[in-house]
Amino acid sequence: MKLDFSVAVHSILYLDAHRDSKVASRELAQSLHLNPVMIRNILSVLHKHGYLTGTVGKNGGYQLDLALADMNLGDLYDLTIPPTISYARFITGPSKTDEQADQSPIAANISETLTDLFTVADRQYRAYYHQFTMADLQADLNHHGTFLQHEQDSES
Amino acid sequence: MKLDFSVAVHSILYLDAHRDSKVASRELAQSLHLNPVMIRNILSVLHKHGYLTGTVGKNGGYQLDLALADMNLGDLYDLTIPPTISYARFITGPSKTDEQADQSPIAANISETLTDLFTVADRQYRAYYHQFTMADLQADLNHHGTFLQHEQDSES
Repeated sequence: MKLDFSVAVHSILYLDAHRDSKVASRELAQSLHLNPVMIRNILSVLHKHGYLTGTVGKNGGYQLDLALADMNLGDLYDLTIPPTISYARFITGPSKTDEQADQSPIAANISETLTDLFTVADRQYRAYYHQFTMADLQADLNHHGTFLQHEQDSES
Repeated sequence: MKLDFSVAVHSILYLDAHRDSKVASRELAQSLHLNPVMIRNILSVLHKHGYLTGTVGKNGGYQLDLALADMNLGDLYDLTIPPTISYARFITGPSKTDEQADQSPIAANISETLTDLFTVADRQYRAYYHQFTMADLQADLNHHGTFLQHEQDSES
């Protein structure tokens, strides 16, 4: 779900603002107005990939292990929104197992064509995020308009 | 829904292969393995925008008004999948009407930052489709790999 990326980004910014302490998932959940279980699920992915340390118990909590500038936004997008959702359900035409299928040249080939189109479009979409780090996102947070400015600059 | 784009593309290819006749929505529905009502809803959008003529009655049906090379793939994408889905539901933080909201600098600003990020990313995603016409899509249908080749060429 697209929300997972937003939760990861928001959590990282919160942890960055509290680098000197361990932050409990309950505290994060309050700040993000979300369920602690959802926070823990997403942070466990970040933990597994070395973004942060998480300790359990009375004085447990999360702490960032990386600087914001060392966290690529595209990596975070790929981690939290993997391209595993099959394009198949967005594509018309008979299924491969359908023996009765209309085997017109269009119906027989459209699935491969649309899959290629959607796959390349998705790769280019992800490439956009890979241009930035969490430091860029923090910069926009402090001074809105950096992403819009970047778009203008790359067009001119 | 993403399927709407696929249905529009598939229908146009079918109508292109039958330019000398009027095609009923029932015939299209059979070829696409979809409900005629869904087909009619999507084709009425294409009709409204001048892609095709649709006549009702006994000898009615759809006929294309444009050449494939004159149909931009990005225009079709924008028509069938408009960017109206609010990013709001993918963004964390308190709602603007929430008086009790945690007004930390992060929570107060993340919505605008993520909206900008997602908006620009979506615009660039759509720009990908705008590079092609339906004639390019038909070319890939007849000879798979043109979209993948185009990606390689633009990287090198």
